[in-house]
Amino acid sequence: MNERQIIEYIAALAGPDDARLLKGIGDDCAVIQKDGNHVWLLTMDTLIEGVHFDCAFHPPEKLGRKAVSVNVSDIGAMGGKPMFVLLSVGMPKGFDPSWFHDFARGLTDACREYGCLLIGGDTVASPLGLTFTLTVIGETATGRVVYRSGARPGDTIWVSGSLGFANAGLELLRRGIDPGNAAFKLFYEQHLNPRARVELGSRLGASGLVQAMMDLSDGLATDLAHLCKQSGVGAHLLAHDLPGVTALVEAARLTGGDPEQWAIGGGEDYELLFTARPEAHSRLLDLGRQCGLPLTPVGTVVEGEGVTLIRQRPEGGREEIAIAYQGFDHFRNRAGG
Amino acid sequence: MNERQIIEYIAALAGPDDARLLKGIGDDCAVIQKDGNHVWLLTMDTLIEGVHFDCAFHPPEKLGRKAVSVNVSDIGAMGGKPMFVLLSVGMPKGFDPSWFHDFARGLTDACREYGCLLIGGDTVASPLGLTFTLTVIGETATGRVVYRSGARPGDTIWVSGSLGFANAGLELLRRGIDPGNAAFKLFYEQHLNPRARVELGSRLGASGLVQAMMDLSDGLATDLAHLCKQSGVGAHLLAHDLPGVTALVEAARLTGGDPEQWAIGGGEDYELLFTARPEAHSRLLDLGRQCGLPLTPVGTVVEGEGVTLIRQRPEGGREEIAIAYQGFDHFRNRAGG
Repeated sequence: MNERQIIEYIAALAGPDDARLLKGIGDDCAVIQKDGNHVWLLTMDTLIEGVHFDCAFHPPEKLGRKAVSVNVSDIGAMGGKPMFVLLSVGMPKGFDPSWFHDFARGLTDACREYGCLLIGGDTVASPLGLTFTLTVIGETATGRVVYRSGARPGDTIWVSGSLGFANAGLELLRRGIDPGNAAFKLFYEQHLNPRARVELGSRLGASGLVQAMMDLSDGLATDLAHLCKQSGVGAHLLAHDLPGVTALVEAARLTGGDPEQWAIGGGEDYELLFTARPEAHSRLLDLGRQCGLPLTPVGTVVEGEGVTLIRQRPEGGREEIAIAYQGFDHFRNRAGG
Repeated sequence: MNERQIIEYIAALAGPDDARLLKGIGDDCAVIQKDGNHVWLLTMDTLIEGVHFDCAFHPPEKLGRKAVSVNVSDIGAMGGKPMFVLLSVGMPKGFDPSWFHDFARGLTDACREYGCLLIGGDTVASPLGLTFTLTVIGETATGRVVYRSGARPGDTIWVSGSLGFANAGLELLRRGIDPGNAAFKLFYEQHLNPRARVELGSRLGASGLVQAMMDLSDGLATDLAHLCKQSGVGAHLLAHDLPGVTALVEAARLTGGDPEQWAIGGGEDYELLFTARPEAHSRLLDLGRQCGLPLTPVGTVVEGEGVTLIRQRPEGGREEIAIAYQGFDHFRNRAGG
């Protein structure tokens, strides 16, 4: 079973949503009614040593921050504001208290910066190594939630920020390559301590300009495939328009990586992926500027299904490659195919 | 650092509760306002292979049920009804799909039986073993939440059901001792598939008879010490009154265990521990009968601090033993002292 099959199996067993639930399994967050005007958004993410982080090069304070960021990112991706955090900590007996102190400080500092409160959780011994699970509860007005399912043919596909930086950072860190230049430092930071696009997501939700939205955690190829499936549409991506790819060339040369593959399959970008009607173009560019983040159109929603990457050949003409679900999946090998 | 120190450290960093929060770290659940008349109760618990369960003798369907029960138990312990469940699943690549199918079926069946819905979560690879974290959200009327902090000197201390059965079951299972008699089957089931006292907790909360309440997960000695600390009181327990101890004698003989130690330090009973004014005695016994569960007075809340076990000596006279926090702690060895 791969990750999607596990989720689909358990969603089928969980049964149909009932009236208490506005959205169950299958989006960035579950959505439940809070009161007459507001909903709660609920999300949960686990970080496991050796899978999501490597203590050899991940400073504990940054790891604590990242644990919060990857969770609040899901809240922002539905247009909400994070409010409350629950934390389950699994550590081996005899863990280093100073490591834990730094981790906890990073985590609680990040909670404060995102405007949310740590309110409870669990503490267990974990012979399996370090493992951290967070649940974040966010809030927004009932009519402002942005789901994955709203994309329509003709929508423009947008991403915030740059793609592939986290993957480049991870590959450089694994090889101990000195962050000699500013770009490398940025890549390092994007892996070690990504910043969730909560303000942007909240403003996009409030703007009413966005049809569908999610965060980029498993890579554009996989995440856009999820969005397309939920919306019953397909997508055309223009390889040439993917933001950040040219900045990756030197890091790719040093590590034997592929900048385009990092951008579409790398995962952990924690940027926002969203679609909007073409007439929203200039207002979206303005909104990005107000948040200090570039927003880039990268393709178009089409009738049908699947995600197609369109590449202009240097010799003229173009090639089209099916790339749906070629990002990160925990239960299969990484290479797409 | 032990478990309490970890929690106190992180609670101090998290900072003081703010107006959004009715109760933060330090009770069975965090409590937040839902609407004018209701609160949400939030709890999170992790189960880790080799710590909380052993796949050699834990059938996956019962493990799925237990994962739900240990979480909804915290909701019941504050007088609430469980509503929504989030699940994070960590499994090694190449896990057995039929094992997972049985686990997921047990988990979703238990959700339905407790009246709650599985609404989301996360799925990750966990190279070193199975790990499951659940967050449960419950609801109750604002004035009906029962905290750990309400115990007053003179209150009677009560427990539901029997103590030590889960520990007896675990010791028998570890040794592969055949469940030849009905009592052993009960002990097995109490470890493998405990039933949370949600209906009882909800009715106790609604009755207005209960001053303080929590569930017994780490053993009476530790859990009662938590309740006393939160309430600023001490407790006297009568060894002779602990329910179920005599039923444990044969299992203890076969495994080299101590029935009284299992009852006060065993953990995983998932019974309710609560205090009430003495005049509520007969109404509580009635309420237990209505729920089909014996409720037993086991001691008295006193001025001061700590938990004292009072044992009548066979030769006459009595001995008093300080037992606070002599239950299960993940980060120290099991034996009290």
